[in-house]
Amino acid sequence: MSDGTTTKPAAFVFDLDGTLVDSVYQHVIAWQQALSEMGIGLANWRIHRRIGMSGGLLVQAMMRETGVRLTPKEADELQNAHHRHFEGWTNAIRPLPGAAELLRTLTDCGVPWTIATSARRDDAAPMFARLAVPPDVPTVTREEVSRAKPDPDLFLAGAARLGIPARDCVVVGDSVWDLLAARRAEALGVGLLSGGYGQDELERAQAFRVYADPLDLLGHIDELGVRDAHGA
Amino acid sequence: MSDGTTTKPAAFVFDLDGTLVDSVYQHVIAWQQALSEMGIGLANWRIHRRIGMSGGLLVQAMMRETGVRLTPKEADELQNAHHRHFEGWTNAIRPLPGAAELLRTLTDCGVPWTIATSARRDDAAPMFARLAVPPDVPTVTREEVSRAKPDPDLFLAGAARLGIPARDCVVVGDSVWDLLAARRAEALGVGLLSGGYGQDELERAQAFRVYADPLDLLGHIDELGVRDAHGA
Repeated sequence: MSDGTTTKPAAFVFDLDGTLVDSVYQHVIAWQQALSEMGIGLANWRIHRRIGMSGGLLVQAMMRETGVRLTPKEADELQNAHHRHFEGWTNAIRPLPGAAELLRTLTDCGVPWTIATSARRDDAAPMFARLAVPPDVPTVTREEVSRAKPDPDLFLAGAARLGIPARDCVVVGDSVWDLLAARRAEALGVGLLSGGYGQDELERAQAFRVYADPLDLLGHIDELGVRDAHGA
Repeated sequence: MSDGTTTKPAAFVFDLDGTLVDSVYQHVIAWQQALSEMGIGLANWRIHRRIGMSGGLLVQAMMRETGVRLTPKEADELQNAHHRHFEGWTNAIRPLPGAAELLRTLTDCGVPWTIATSARRDDAAPMFARLAVPPDVPTVTREEVSRAKPDPDLFLAGAARLGIPARDCVVVGDSVWDLLAARRAEALGVGLLSGGYGQDELERAQAFRVYADPLDLLGHIDELGVRDAHGA
């Protein structure tokens, strides 16, 4: 029976690093190693709080914080060095607890979802495989938009590929940059602690709800309007 | 001229990892590697929030969070594996910005200070050298107390070696375990963001003040009652 109103199904756009896979701390160390090779000292915690933004903005922020000036060529070298160091960690990186189950549950419930990440496709692809992301999920990576987070382009592209307005999407991320990008996309931002930010930092960045990790989100999925496969 | 009151000089007891040296993220990775070798999965952010407590309590907390039971022998092996992995990082670890200058300034101002750390002496000694800690500073390491943080023993021992009641000391740390131990020692707890906790987490653990890192603390040292060498 219908009461005549249209129930819009929730749709989810997920960040990847720190949200679905446990890779933030390895990214921090890889940036630390890349910076160190170029003789630049920047404390780990300051790098940590920049993970998730576009590589270009991250390098710009690092230059401001360290006072070091890099040529565009050196900035590219720095990003490539990070990429090279991070590659060494790829095999050690695991999905966060509940990540694969959460995605499978959404699929089973008929809720559209995708992943939109500031990572390059070749860094992200092995993670998608580990999360058992079906090939028909329209994931978005760095190369496919002109500006990464905190610009809204990645989440807007993810929503567009789902064919759902971003304002009807829930964006799930672990960093304030995700939440800022979610807000700019007019989506509902939900935060996870699994990237290592404190709860208050995410709430101040306007997270509608904050969960520990994907498993905790899955345990409270009704709070985000997802009914189970039987329509409960 | 004196007004007849006794001005007690401030005294400082510092934590080491994340407070004076930039080693927290390497500790996280080393624990992750050690756990992984034993087939135990625990997310990096959960490890991060346990750094700074005694190794024994940390292993106990990890066992509770993962549901894995370890024999005392396995728990020892885990701690040794962490130690082995961390050793590989030792050369890459740098003092945090302002750390050596802060300690030197306190010495120049005649303010007693020491370092009290949950780390073992052989992990801590290279860091003390990098911070140019003078040999007459009565540092305290893990072996020298029966219970590490969040028990107050380390900070109490540090204060005792300075010959100053803990309640007249400022304890500076980056973790909630430092602040809890400071409170239990009746010392004034001051938090630094340089270990990667959020400001709110440290304030909720009763940090009297929170600074970004040792350099930021040095720039506001008057807030903690330290006059410069000329008695200003």
